[in-house]
Amino acid sequence: MTIKVGLIGAGVMGGDHARILSTSVGGAELVAVSDADRARAEAVAASYGGGVVADAEAVIGNDAVDAVIVASPDPTHKPLVLACLAAGKPVLCEKPLGLTTDECLEIIAAETALGKRLVQVGFMRRFDPGYVAMKTTLDSGDLGQALMLHCVHRNETAASYTTSENMIANTAVHEMDIARWLLGTDVARVTVVTPRPTRLARMQDPQILLFHMTDGVVVTVEVFVNCQYGYDVRGELVCEKGTATLTPPHDITLRQARHDGFGHPADWRPRFAEAYRVELQAWIDAAAGGPPAGASAWDGYAATAVAEAGLAALKSGATTEVTMADRPGLYD
Amino acid sequence: MTIKVGLIGAGVMGGDHARILSTSVGGAELVAVSDADRARAEAVAASYGGGVVADAEAVIGNDAVDAVIVASPDPTHKPLVLACLAAGKPVLCEKPLGLTTDECLEIIAAETALGKRLVQVGFMRRFDPGYVAMKTTLDSGDLGQALMLHCVHRNETAASYTTSENMIANTAVHEMDIARWLLGTDVARVTVVTPRPTRLARMQDPQILLFHMTDGVVVTVEVFVNCQYGYDVRGELVCEKGTATLTPPHDITLRQARHDGFGHPADWRPRFAEAYRVELQAWIDAAAGGPPAGASAWDGYAATAVAEAGLAALKSGATTEVTMADRPGLYD
Amino acid sequence: MTIKVGLIGAGVMGGDHARILSTSVGGAELVAVSDADRARAEAVAASYGGGVVADAEAVIGNDAVDAVIVASPDPTHKPLVLACLAAGKPVLCEKPLGLTTDECLEIIAAETALGKRLVQVGFMRRFDPGYVAMKTTLDSGDLGQALMLHCVHRNETAASYTTSENMIANTAVHEMDIARWLLGTDVARVTVVTPRPTRLARMQDPQILLFHMTDGVVVTVEVFVNCQYGYDVRGELVCEKGTATLTPPHDITLRQARHDGFGHPADWRPRFAEAYRVELQAWIDAAAGGPPAGASAWDGYAATAVAEAGLAALKSGATTEVTMADRPGLYD
Amino acid sequence: MTIKVGLIGAGVMGGDHARILSTSVGGAELVAVSDADRARAEAVAASYGGGVVADAEAVIGNDAVDAVIVASPDPTHKPLVLACLAAGKPVLCEKPLGLTTDECLEIIAAETALGKRLVQVGFMRRFDPGYVAMKTTLDSGDLGQALMLHCVHRNETAASYTTSENMIANTAVHEMDIARWLLGTDVARVTVVTPRPTRLARMQDPQILLFHMTDGVVVTVEVFVNCQYGYDVRGELVCEKGTATLTPPHDITLRQARHDGFGHPADWRPRFAEAYRVELQAWIDAAAGGPPAGASAWDGYAATAVAEAGLAALKSGATTEVTMADRPGLYD
Repeated sequence: MTIKVGLIGAGVMGGDHARILSTSVGGAELVAVSDADRARAEAVAASYGGGVVADAEAVIGNDAVDAVIVASPDPTHKPLVLACLAAGKPVLCEKPLGLTTDECLEIIAAETALGKRLVQVGFMRRFDPGYVAMKTTLDSGDLGQALMLHCVHRNETAASYTTSENMIANTAVHEMDIARWLLGTDVARVTVVTPRPTRLARMQDPQILLFHMTDGVVVTVEVFVNCQYGYDVRGELVCEKGTATLTPPHDITLRQARHDGFGHPADWRPRFAEAYRVELQAWIDAAAGGPPAGASAWDGYAATAVAEAGLAALKSGATTEVTMADRPGLYD
Repeated sequence: MTIKVGLIGAGVMGGDHARILSTSVGGAELVAVSDADRARAEAVAASYGGGVVADAEAVIGNDAVDAVIVASPDPTHKPLVLACLAAGKPVLCEKPLGLTTDECLEIIAAETALGKRLVQVGFMRRFDPGYVAMKTTLDSGDLGQALMLHCVHRNETAASYTTSENMIANTAVHEMDIARWLLGTDVARVTVVTPRPTRLARMQDPQILLFHMTDGVVVTVEVFVNCQYGYDVRGELVCEKGTATLTPPHDITLRQARHDGFGHPADWRPRFAEAYRVELQAWIDAAAGGPPAGASAWDGYAATAVAEAGLAALKSGATTEVTMADRPGLYD
Repeated sequence: MTIKVGLIGAGVMGGDHARILSTSVGGAELVAVSDADRARAEAVAASYGGGVVADAEAVIGNDAVDAVIVASPDPTHKPLVLACLAAGKPVLCEKPLGLTTDECLEIIAAETALGKRLVQVGFMRRFDPGYVAMKTTLDSGDLGQALMLHCVHRNETAASYTTSENMIANTAVHEMDIARWLLGTDVARVTVVTPRPTRLARMQDPQILLFHMTDGVVVTVEVFVNCQYGYDVRGELVCEKGTATLTPPHDITLRQARHDGFGHPADWRPRFAEAYRVELQAWIDAAAGGPPAGASAWDGYAATAVAEAGLAALKSGATTEVTMADRPGLYD
Repeated sequence: MTIKVGLIGAGVMGGDHARILSTSVGGAELVAVSDADRARAEAVAASYGGGVVADAEAVIGNDAVDAVIVASPDPTHKPLVLACLAAGKPVLCEKPLGLTTDECLEIIAAETALGKRLVQVGFMRRFDPGYVAMKTTLDSGDLGQALMLHCVHRNETAASYTTSENMIANTAVHEMDIARWLLGTDVARVTVVTPRPTRLARMQDPQILLFHMTDGVVVTVEVFVNCQYGYDVRGELVCEKGTATLTPPHDITLRQARHDGFGHPADWRPRFAEAYRVELQAWIDAAAGGPPAGASAWDGYAATAVAEAGLAALKSGATTEVTMADRPGLYD
């Protein structure tokens, strides 16, 4: 069985999904691509297959399309996901699911009404072998229960339009999701600590976020989006009897010019290449009838709720409660 | 375009190929499976698709089969590969290509007569990200030219039927291939050095092989198939201005019970999981019309020629020349 | 020139100092030892030299003693250091310098009145090659200015008498000193974050301390004194253009039983063995006429002031200012 | 008790010994220094103590000198060590003990006649914490018995006068000693394998030496004295149940400019700084009446015997037996 995929948005992420789908995922075929910039859609279709269609609606409404990837600009996510739900088609939506918790709740209402999980949010870290190994270790019970999770999230340089707020809503949002997934609990409250900023950027960079989980586990997250030296994501899970630490992926070390070590990538894609591949495969497998995989619409909502608390905490300087709606049974 | 694959041999390696093909390779579908033990074939087909057919001939001769994987016992490799060539179908043959250089030359003669490369030999290390990064580094010229390659190849415990000779013909044969591929030259002569053996096995284990490449590069290979602690493959390429060292893949490190480190797998499959996946994808892509990928029949022959020299060197204790036929133009 | 040393307190730390002094420090000789438990003093003297004297006063007042090590119980530190100052003898006092900031200020007043630095506080980490390399890197300016310092301080198990408060006053006090020394600024305020505690101890363990330095650098300190897996001190200094991370000292890695890694010590002494040795050598060199080395009485006071703020922060749950006296010119 | 040390030879090694002796060794005092170049002797004495005396004889014959360090040019070693023996004074002689096995045997005869071990040869690696940990691990029996030892010995660039022969006699000689010490057996025969040489030097560089120990253990030694990237010594001891690998000492890792790793030193002194310190301390402790420490005259002879076999092996291309005299009981 081959799942025929339609792609909305042929930018960096959309193009990457198309490439992975056509070169290293089984059971899938790219059949339709749309982008506001038709030339981009054509380039992706030429490389990875599928026909170019006029617009997002022409992807979703296309009878040949079994499942849809939404990788278009953030403000389009909600309406497009709703359209996919209306069409009864599985959708992989890049984060964020919605611009606000209200938008996310609209999607949840629609999916709940449908009574069937069709939405997967693109929190790819849930498929990263490192985080998966960390979770497997935690769930084994060998280390006792979790007490703390230390996260570091560094980008070489931030895009010119990045703001202090983006660092929470677009960058740290990955840790908001992974903390919930890994620890199996929700974020109860958020604090933002602001060190003196680097002089090499015009924003509050770095920031340190603290999450108090509902069961008392504390998560520390350093977000530093202009660290200059490369893309670097770290993590250590601290349990009662031991800890598990992510190994930064690298295939070789070089000894050269008095140095001994490995290289950091320039951006997140090499770091999470395997996560993206497994994420897409899991999504295709789910679309082909397997169990839902990855982050649900509820998880997309929860991450947005934590991000909203984080933004309030950044603004006020105070620890801020995360307020969440009741979770519909569909997401149990 | 979907390549329909027939599988001959549903043992450990065949079953793994079926799994990978159906869960993480794009553009492929398993359609037929055979095994001398029909129950094994049925189990694999049930999990990963395809119908069970009577025997190898029923796979190769099957009109629905575009390409064939040969993972049956070693003595069947030559006749099955010849049958695939006769049928004009791409074939991925597990190593060894043949039991002897003569058998390999028969295949080469048949493929050369056909004038078209259809055979890929399953030297999966060529697709391992570590070796690929090492080769990319060498080919960049940044480190100058290669002078030495140090290899370590350790298995936790050898199967009961393993002999001192198997350690060369079945284990070190991987290094025979990877050295040729990585360095881009042939092995000119082989020496086997024999340390005192471990008391935990009944064979000459470990062994140290030395390859002198045709351009003077020296390759050292420690083969130790009862090392007790786990499966472990290492390598360091030493060039004029620096070295590149394989990182043993691991996703996390654990701190527990006064230890800090990572785990070794029990066998080769986790170590080379990514290599197997990429190998299969490359083979499918080639079958779908792409350029030939991986080790050719000639490479299969060359590895066997080096292994034969290695066996003679083990027996005689003397450095032994590798004698090779002339390479047909098909393999340039 | 040989400095004749008197030792007050022949317990774990005192005994270690005696051993190091007599086996791996130049220019020193142990000549007198006292301990409330005379047998302990005799054991140390028998192993490392010196005569046993009646009490601390008999050490300090001894004409043969050039310099004094105070390694007796904490409440004795202040009076003994004052006695050393009165006797005009250099003194290495184990931390804490005093039980309270008031006690420390008494010492500072006496030393200032003397007009000469004679007191060194035993914050040995200032001599640890890792922290020294970190400071050298920072001071070189290559990485730009410091923005954050992440510290982890873990003990395998805490002594039965350890309390949540001890974790700040006796454990995290090392980070209070090293942060000031490394960053060259003072701690302005302290926050204590309390994750759910481990069930394997009866205290608020772990704790996360946050120091805001006077220039805005933020220091995070995880203190976890019942981590079960061993003694482990980590640190990463994050600057504008890169970071420097402590390497946990280990001489070899072992591959055994599917593990690959190194061992953690049971307590702090192996981890800081080199720091203790260099600390003692620097103290002896200073006593022999070299410049003052290590932490001054002022540094001892400052660490105690930060600890007091930390204790208040632990109690109140609120961020707490560190209040400090004016620094006498003697300590510029 | 303070051992008064005389130093013969105030070059790089002599100066280093003087520095270590006066700054980080207990129980010792430098009292006399000589050098063919009087200015060098004066510089060392000015920095580290002691009076400058006319010549080597004036050091050895000096009544104030208890023990002598010989760090003068290689051809002077034998006569000076003999003079120390004649004077009944402990002597630490830099390697080589003699230029030939015959010279070494002369010393052994003299020491044997004296009936007392006074000679220590400067094979400092025996005191390196890494090798010591490796030996401790082996001797514990946890890993079973040794089967192989892999050594790598790389220098950034060789001095202009270095030859292919020097690489054996002066560089690999360290591995000749450490293999004997670590494994507790002698080298029975030596083979030298010659890869194509680097184009960045004018000698047979690198070389691979193979030692067959008397009990069948095989030692591989890569010697590469123009590796360009820094000084680097590695080692892995392979036993029946596991392996122990030297960790290259480094205090911090740096993340900077897309790199993550540690630095290699330019030469051997930082790498073996701790080994030199402990070596000197052990020598002083022995001179003060403790048991003999480090490499004996016999060990110096044995290393030279292995080196002579190595030179013959390099010349002939054949495996060469090491011939050794009978060991006098003094060295049991």
